[in-house]
Amino acid sequence: MNGIRPIRWLHEARCLELIDQRLLPLEERWRRCADVNEVAESIEDMTVRGAPAIGITAAYGVVLGLGALADAGRLGEPEARARVFDLLLQTRPTAVNLAWALERMRQLCEGLLVGGIPSADSLWAALEGEADRILAEDIEINGMIGEHGAGFIEDGMGVLTHCNAGALATGGYGTALGVIRKAWEQGRRFTVYADETRPRQQGARLTVWELVKDGIDVRLITDNMAGSLMRAGRIDLAITGADRVARNGDTANKIGTYGVAVLCRYHGLPFYVAAPLSTLDPALADGSGIPIEERDGDEVRVINGAPVTVPGVPVENPGFDVTPAALITRVITEHGAFAPRDLDAYLSDQGL
Amino acid sequence: MNGIRPIRWLHEARCLELIDQRLLPLEERWRRCADVNEVAESIEDMTVRGAPAIGITAAYGVVLGLGALADAGRLGEPEARARVFDLLLQTRPTAVNLAWALERMRQLCEGLLVGGIPSADSLWAALEGEADRILAEDIEINGMIGEHGAGFIEDGMGVLTHCNAGALATGGYGTALGVIRKAWEQGRRFTVYADETRPRQQGARLTVWELVKDGIDVRLITDNMAGSLMRAGRIDLAITGADRVARNGDTANKIGTYGVAVLCRYHGLPFYVAAPLSTLDPALADGSGIPIEERDGDEVRVINGAPVTVPGVPVENPGFDVTPAALITRVITEHGAFAPRDLDAYLSDQGL
Repeated sequence: MNGIRPIRWLHEARCLELIDQRLLPLEERWRRCADVNEVAESIEDMTVRGAPAIGITAAYGVVLGLGALADAGRLGEPEARARVFDLLLQTRPTAVNLAWALERMRQLCEGLLVGGIPSADSLWAALEGEADRILAEDIEINGMIGEHGAGFIEDGMGVLTHCNAGALATGGYGTALGVIRKAWEQGRRFTVYADETRPRQQGARLTVWELVKDGIDVRLITDNMAGSLMRAGRIDLAITGADRVARNGDTANKIGTYGVAVLCRYHGLPFYVAAPLSTLDPALADGSGIPIEERDGDEVRVINGAPVTVPGVPVENPGFDVTPAALITRVITEHGAFAPRDLDAYLSDQGL
Repeated sequence: MNGIRPIRWLHEARCLELIDQRLLPLEERWRRCADVNEVAESIEDMTVRGAPAIGITAAYGVVLGLGALADAGRLGEPEARARVFDLLLQTRPTAVNLAWALERMRQLCEGLLVGGIPSADSLWAALEGEADRILAEDIEINGMIGEHGAGFIEDGMGVLTHCNAGALATGGYGTALGVIRKAWEQGRRFTVYADETRPRQQGARLTVWELVKDGIDVRLITDNMAGSLMRAGRIDLAITGADRVARNGDTANKIGTYGVAVLCRYHGLPFYVAAPLSTLDPALADGSGIPIEERDGDEVRVINGAPVTVPGVPVENPGFDVTPAALITRVITEHGAFAPRDLDAYLSDQGL
């Protein structure tokens, strides 16, 4: 089992430590967050990124935010509590795991408050316990996603992945990279092609780093090379993570995912999405309602601190795109690899 | 008519000046080449790039190489002459315009030698004249390509282009950007989306610079954004240049062109190639015989002098890909906009 854990809670010190993903792979530096503002900032500035990892981080942000309120004797103020949740919720709009984790923490908190204001110590303990569970469950879920998906990868295959859906994007082990890791652990040998994933290069910086660390055969490509590798018969399937999946299976993920899915369809290759069920948004019938974050244009205009174009030229910089369900072969979750059309019935069965 | 001229011959000084395209758009520095070795180096290190521009540059390289031989009284040595051509031919393998221009200069030289060894001065004059004609004809041809293609661009359209097929890639005006310029000069208003074109970012560095200079509405995108812009209905056609076109219309061009063509097909959009007839290779029945240059992996691993991945990780770095004729709507040349299937008959009519 891969040992990368990007999020750690220090119980004694009551603070959160995040590996700074903006500095990887050149530097492994941990950033300490001692209050909810620092947590929100770390999500916003992408010290931590990846839908499940954002959810876990936000859960610990609630621990710090409500814990501080309890210490100050202000836990009974609904507006003060709401500010903690709102601050975290507005950090990133696309990944639904953020809202999911916050909702879980909110329900715990409301449950505690039903019996009156708890002591600060018992509140801290209860919130810490819940955030720890969210983290531990995420790692366990990723192992299950890996089990459900690993069989799709066979010896000698070329496997394309986009962005980073690895240990760094989660509590540990990863979703898409969890599937890849599991297949590798099961003894199969294949080649992973990692899209660099402009503009922030999570593929080049993070996916490559993870796979090299694990000794998994990886080759880095620019995003625009995937098509010609497919035409040359060197890619057999593609697998990515997800930031939000609608009831019909439409899937938001890192910009460029849609293009990968179209290329797979054109070449007759399967395209898999690997994600925990917390990435499903039962409130959305289809992908048209998923908010797409538009990010700072300098992410496109500037690399490694220097411009790569005419300064100030207009750019587009959507952080995500939506891949229609029709292009997705399977959505691999901890409860199995669903055909996208079966997700809706599954959610209904769960009362969602 | 756009005034960017990336290649200039100084008649008095008998040397070639090239705008250093590796430094654009941040710096406009001219590099002077006083002998054939410096010309070959400038092609190899991509001071100058773009299929037609490479051809023109190589023609001036022949002027310098054979002129020096004549000055040294060695023009009569066939091996010495062959070394000049070989040195230039081996600089870049994919663009056929290089071989085409060298062949034209070779024929001129052989014609001169039929009547005995010419004086150095008359050799210089003849070679300079021919290289000047190749340059002037290229600019004129690009205007004609523009005339044949401009009608495909209508008011309000979104036009995608990949890499740089502009004034900088040619003697001036450009092929794909020539079509765009002509449509703009004819008064139509539209938006150009420029793929940044990793790994060397000719779209971000060069195409954006050219279009901003001309006041043409341009937006820069990363290569992986084109698909979602098409899905959103914001792109109406794509147009690129070419490095080599086979008899059946299969077209080699900058890596990523094939992916753009597949995306166009999936979205029902036309995909145009704009290129002079010198980019057609009558010797190749189809694209399978086009040599694809594999370039240094650090082009992928390092940007602006700093690594963007784990140093030394294996990469793929093909400089070009081949788009099959079936994905190409028209090949726009100085003699008209051909359906790819009609190119072969056209070449046969020309006795090629």
